[in-house]
Amino acid sequence: MIAETILSPVAPELALVEERLLQDISGDVELISEIIRYVLKSGGKRVRPALLLLSAKLCGYGGGARNIDLAVVAEYMHAATLIHDDIIDRADKRRGLPSANSTWGSQISVLAGDFLYARSLQMLVIDGDLAVMRAFADATVRMIEGQVREAQMAGNLDLAYHEYLNIITSKTAALISVACRTGALIAGRPAEEVAALTEFGLNLGIGFQLVDDALDFVAEEDRLGKPVGNDFKEGKVTFPVLHVMRAGSEADQGRIRELAAQTTLGESDLAEVKAIVERYGAVSATMELVRTYLKKAKTSLGFFPDSAAKRSLVLMVDFVGDRDW
Amino acid sequence: MIAETILSPVAPELALVEERLLQDISGDVELISEIIRYVLKSGGKRVRPALLLLSAKLCGYGGGARNIDLAVVAEYMHAATLIHDDIIDRADKRRGLPSANSTWGSQISVLAGDFLYARSLQMLVIDGDLAVMRAFADATVRMIEGQVREAQMAGNLDLAYHEYLNIITSKTAALISVACRTGALIAGRPAEEVAALTEFGLNLGIGFQLVDDALDFVAEEDRLGKPVGNDFKEGKVTFPVLHVMRAGSEADQGRIRELAAQTTLGESDLAEVKAIVERYGAVSATMELVRTYLKKAKTSLGFFPDSAAKRSLVLMVDFVGDRDW
Repeated sequence: MIAETILSPVAPELALVEERLLQDISGDVELISEIIRYVLKSGGKRVRPALLLLSAKLCGYGGGARNIDLAVVAEYMHAATLIHDDIIDRADKRRGLPSANSTWGSQISVLAGDFLYARSLQMLVIDGDLAVMRAFADATVRMIEGQVREAQMAGNLDLAYHEYLNIITSKTAALISVACRTGALIAGRPAEEVAALTEFGLNLGIGFQLVDDALDFVAEEDRLGKPVGNDFKEGKVTFPVLHVMRAGSEADQGRIRELAAQTTLGESDLAEVKAIVERYGAVSATMELVRTYLKKAKTSLGFFPDSAAKRSLVLMVDFVGDRDW
Repeated sequence: MIAETILSPVAPELALVEERLLQDISGDVELISEIIRYVLKSGGKRVRPALLLLSAKLCGYGGGARNIDLAVVAEYMHAATLIHDDIIDRADKRRGLPSANSTWGSQISVLAGDFLYARSLQMLVIDGDLAVMRAFADATVRMIEGQVREAQMAGNLDLAYHEYLNIITSKTAALISVACRTGALIAGRPAEEVAALTEFGLNLGIGFQLVDDALDFVAEEDRLGKPVGNDFKEGKVTFPVLHVMRAGSEADQGRIRELAAQTTLGESDLAEVKAIVERYGAVSATMELVRTYLKKAKTSLGFFPDSAAKRSLVLMVDFVGDRDW
């Protein structure tokens, strides 16, 4: 979890968001509520709601409950992508628990994800701010484009760095960025501040995804909630692997290609991938890149005067860089 | 296809919609465009765009291109539900052609549907009318709730008529109704006219779905693009079957239960279902109910003075009642 001290400036708001997330989402269709409550309960870290609330506080928002409503929307949209993503990856587990698709089947899980998107749209309409809607709409299109390109690039070990960075910017950073942008928008801040927080979220989001890539090769299964080397197993090409395909010996590159082409990968295969990744310091290289993006994120915050919310956002950046979850 | 004479008052607008539908939907991700173009090309009858355009014309809309944009949105949303629906039903065919999921796989098809929803949201934001957005948002939530309830009720032969009618109202009629409602909204008509067209679309949509139910037992495969008895085979409980479960002899009801419980159904099984359905005039009973709803739809049109658009909407109602597609 994110340390309580980091979140203390928005603790009451986060508690309200949490309460809302676990309420029935559909009055009529119990099954929908059940699936979505299960997904939302299973250990999400509420990164997007926390960023939205902190950004709003940074910008002096204090006019009502729009921060709560929109933080819920951000988490709903995130949950929708997780549910559909697990169907796409045929994942059995999510955060150490059975995935929605392995519990209720892919069929009904498609609809549970659709429902979260549809309810988000409804809530955005009720909120009624076209600038906020546009931000979420654009981010949603980008997220889905990113997911499609990721699926298309599965197993492509010749992916260029910039293509890879484009994919994770769309897939992960776009929604994190929108959470931050929304904080500035609802506070009615001028365009430069909106842009600064948008940029902050984008760089933080890229760093966040790269850490995720690195964790696939270093974290323990019980911390991560999924097996080590899981991304590689699913055919996902991540930054550490791309690093090996540039820095590695011809023999090791060839070995990675062979392993990536295998239809099933056992424990010893994954251990071999991990050993090759370690041989070329690919995790360190990834974390080096993470630091570049996180530094850019902090620079964007330079725009804002000191406050408890700003200190928390800086700590969030450090937390993303240090995270082992 | 819908007869050209019916559509003549909006022929130029429909041509523009058609052109827009076949344009690339994603500039960046060719695969998305390819899948969606395939689905949109494969013989859709553009019922929702036609209704939106005719409703707008009935209401005197003439201020720009919002009718075209929103007709495209209505068809996008319909296509999104078709793509996800075929995944849910594990359908191999749609309108006589291989379904998207059987061509590109369920995984990428989930994202193609998501993309259509996301692009629709983007277009609604660009259109910028909260009343229109709300109508589409509410319809989307209802559609998905309807689909979930249908999936939950699969194989439930004890479904009450009113429950069944609730399901098809959500699943099918909500979006058809929104197409008609939008026509009145963009023309800036008073609340009573908006309500009359909303009601018109709702009753027309219920009739439309009931005809679909009946066609499952009477149409020929080459007209329908899917095998006869396909709904029954997929476990969908439709009105003709529910009629047999009320009007049929105990023996025939029991036989329907046995057949519905079978994991696979051959040609002779489906012929037996069809024979039982015919024995109790279940198709006629369904068409009787269709006439009730279509009559209500026409009554709602009584609100509007005579015009070419109104005559076309009346013909659309008759067409739905007579359709064999």
